[in-house]
Amino acid sequence: MNGAESLIRTASALGIDVCFANPGTTELQFVVALDAVPGMRSVLGLFEGVCTGAADGYGRMTGSPALTLLHLGPGFANGIANLHNARRAHTPIVNLIGDHASWHGSFDAPLTSDIVSLATPVSAWVRTATSAKTLADDAAAAIEAALAPPGQIATLIVPQDCAWDPADAAARTIARPRPAPVSERAIVGATDAVRTGANCALFLGGPALTAPALRAADRIARSSGCRVLQETFASRVEQGRGIPSVANLPYFPEQAIAALAEIEQLVLIGARDPVAFFGYPDVPSRLAPERCTRLELAGPEDDCEGALEALVRAVAPEGAPASGATSDPEPPDPPSGALDVETLGRALAALQPEGAIIVNEGATSGFGFGAHSAAAAPHSMLGLTGGAIGQGLPTAVGAAVACPDRRVIALQADGSGMYTLQALWTAARESLDLVALICANRSYRILQVELARAGIAEPGRHARGLTDLGRPDLDWVSLARGLGVPGSRAETADALVTELGRALATPGPSLIEAIL
Amino acid sequence: MNGAESLIRTASALGIDVCFANPGTTELQFVVALDAVPGMRSVLGLFEGVCTGAADGYGRMTGSPALTLLHLGPGFANGIANLHNARRAHTPIVNLIGDHASWHGSFDAPLTSDIVSLATPVSAWVRTATSAKTLADDAAAAIEAALAPPGQIATLIVPQDCAWDPADAAARTIARPRPAPVSERAIVGATDAVRTGANCALFLGGPALTAPALRAADRIARSSGCRVLQETFASRVEQGRGIPSVANLPYFPEQAIAALAEIEQLVLIGARDPVAFFGYPDVPSRLAPERCTRLELAGPEDDCEGALEALVRAVAPEGAPASGATSDPEPPDPPSGALDVETLGRALAALQPEGAIIVNEGATSGFGFGAHSAAAAPHSMLGLTGGAIGQGLPTAVGAAVACPDRRVIALQADGSGMYTLQALWTAARESLDLVALICANRSYRILQVELARAGIAEPGRHARGLTDLGRPDLDWVSLARGLGVPGSRAETADALVTELGRALATPGPSLIEAIL
Repeated sequence: MNGAESLIRTASALGIDVCFANPGTTELQFVVALDAVPGMRSVLGLFEGVCTGAADGYGRMTGSPALTLLHLGPGFANGIANLHNARRAHTPIVNLIGDHASWHGSFDAPLTSDIVSLATPVSAWVRTATSAKTLADDAAAAIEAALAPPGQIATLIVPQDCAWDPADAAARTIARPRPAPVSERAIVGATDAVRTGANCALFLGGPALTAPALRAADRIARSSGCRVLQETFASRVEQGRGIPSVANLPYFPEQAIAALAEIEQLVLIGARDPVAFFGYPDVPSRLAPERCTRLELAGPEDDCEGALEALVRAVAPEGAPASGATSDPEPPDPPSGALDVETLGRALAALQPEGAIIVNEGATSGFGFGAHSAAAAPHSMLGLTGGAIGQGLPTAVGAAVACPDRRVIALQADGSGMYTLQALWTAARESLDLVALICANRSYRILQVELARAGIAEPGRHARGLTDLGRPDLDWVSLARGLGVPGSRAETADALVTELGRALATPGPSLIEAIL
Repeated sequence: MNGAESLIRTASALGIDVCFANPGTTELQFVVALDAVPGMRSVLGLFEGVCTGAADGYGRMTGSPALTLLHLGPGFANGIANLHNARRAHTPIVNLIGDHASWHGSFDAPLTSDIVSLATPVSAWVRTATSAKTLADDAAAAIEAALAPPGQIATLIVPQDCAWDPADAAARTIARPRPAPVSERAIVGATDAVRTGANCALFLGGPALTAPALRAADRIARSSGCRVLQETFASRVEQGRGIPSVANLPYFPEQAIAALAEIEQLVLIGARDPVAFFGYPDVPSRLAPERCTRLELAGPEDDCEGALEALVRAVAPEGAPASGATSDPEPPDPPSGALDVETLGRALAALQPEGAIIVNEGATSGFGFGAHSAAAAPHSMLGLTGGAIGQGLPTAVGAAVACPDRRVIALQADGSGMYTLQALWTAARESLDLVALICANRSYRILQVELARAGIAEPGRHARGLTDLGRPDLDWVSLARGLGVPGSRAETADALVTELGRALATPGPSLIEAIL
């Protein structure tokens, strides 16, 4: 057995069963090892950002890390943007990077690069292997690091001689710590805070957006009169009929500041003190008022569900009042007429089946779905946690690999989708039940909004050219065909309803270009 | 005037006239400044790797830096792979990266990232601006750094408040050092070496591959009997009828070692001591024999043409012998019959017009062109210097922007081409005279070769799946259509000749998918 096989055996024994790969010459020992060790599924991405985004989607849905297999510094670099998002989502991922043989590195061959410098900004754990004999231990340590609550990115760099030199099997066991319970003292503090009523808000994020957590937060709010808000971009939130709906903190800081203006006590559960996405002149970075007291009940690494349930018991020991007026909304009617952000979102909310996974990189075109998602069938929604665009299609691929019994729908802005459109080919090769719903507004609309916010009423030639995706228009139906995915185009709400219904009833991947 | 405008004014005054951009919110002041300052051309890429690869192609053809405009850490990271190639090509480039406003960085907003850690591995110069007032000076320093011979990558990170705060115009002048002349002593040493005859080789790279440099090297060889070789992957080499043809050092180390086996003195001119692309068990990393003496006549930063001309004068003070048997080869005949690597290369060599720029990311499919390029019309060839795939189409875009009067042909492997296919859209928007010739062997063929070299006679399911681009086949004609570029498919050599002739006679971009 060589080092590569000992690593793959160890990973497999520790429960890793998927490897999203785009290997090069320095990873071939691992490719061969995948054939030697039964039980691991390998999924090829035609660009590394597909692999890392897929590992993000897989990890968000399973709570377990997938392997990525990436080629030295430049190949890894192609995956950094989606690792940035995964880091912000607290997703467990183990990156496996082949490097030059240890003795070859000093010769500065063309592909030599400082992988540690590239990997450190997106990794909680980075190690360079030093021997084939210890590679199995390195793999176990990486998996252990990835599984540390709430989930982390671990990057293991393997000089090629460590992969091909002889090794022993060494599948050691690893510690799998559970999220820490919160202290009684924190519960008492939070209880006092929420009892002050409407000037207190629970601010939920990370692992506090499961259905049980949301139900507990709703009971606390109904008992105490406090408010509940969630992070603007959730890693994963359960939504739809039967699940209490929680408002997102708005994206633009003025709106977020207004939403929090009356809050005097902010109880953080799985979320950090909210800050503006970008800094603006004369706008504070911290969105809650200065006078507001921040109380961290539970961090993302803690047992957020347990904390909320303990808070329910403290606030409403005799049970929360019946939900009364907050009964479930009616399912939305499918729209008709013009296709716009609202009707697009309504069509999706009306048609998406129970248990769907919505990967929302809709950007400005995704707001319509937000307005209707509470009335949709229950579903999981995965958001753009780190702001690095190009996340949606790859993450949808990973979610579909993780959950073959669920329908995955990528609500995908066109500008962002172009970053990693190669993901569609992987969906075709793996026959994933994935619908890519492309919101084709043919612009970087958010930048046009930001130009207007900055007082640029009449953008000049460069500003128009650099925020407009036309001349020529992208043709997503042809792009999908080129990648082996059947596609269609919808120019009206009625057409979208027809095409989306057809796509959701058909096995395998498909793409709908919704012209906005 | 704000900081952004002072920077763009400075860059424009110092001769920068193109900005390859994919801006985000933190770069909008620069977008607005492009409208305020006449004379700079902005070119939108739909993915950052397109922008950095285009800047590489532009810099290789002009010797001057283009600006790139990229969005924080993750956006920059998407451009790293092609900056890695550009660094290896000694291409001058100035990267301009917007960052969070200085006071906002400490709040760890979603897009906060360690840009310096990401930029350092691919940049010779990195600076984070500290004030709008000094931003013009920062820009001048970046341009100066980029222009330091032989060309470098300079990365300037601009917190957004430095862009929007008030500034003065401050277009200072910069030093533009010329490549250093080589010493008389070095010439004397090289003269002694080449006079030993066939056991000496000139090893040319970097700036020693211009037509005058190649002619000088040829005269030295004919006078002394020494050999001449060039780097395996040249940044830019002049080739074709009327230009002495120099053999490349082979890619695989066994072949390279054999090519250098008899060499006792290696004279390095613009190239470093040759090393293997990858390390292999029991294969030395240094390709020339241990006993061989290395003599660096000129580094890439030195005046390589001047060094070769001085060496001509020393070796053949009375003039080199007439070229005799080395008269120019006949132009190749266009091929007929089956389409394979050889006929593809021959078709390209037969049809490419004089002055063409061939961007060669053909990988294993590019060898056929190498066999015929000496007989082709004179052209410039740009190679994959750093081994980071996805270079070809973006670099072709940049070369076409740099040289609107020349035909650009991307000889493009399909697997590599998929990394940055978004470049085709930029070619369409800018109406570039660019032909993308896709070598569709539908595999990562080099990895299949490496598996065979490693003794894997019968690759298993994973090894086949991860090196095969089929199931489904990519359809490049549809991909091109989706990106606004007319495309066609050739399955025979005759069809390729027809389609290539048509494409070269038609203004604007086109794509030919050559099925191998």
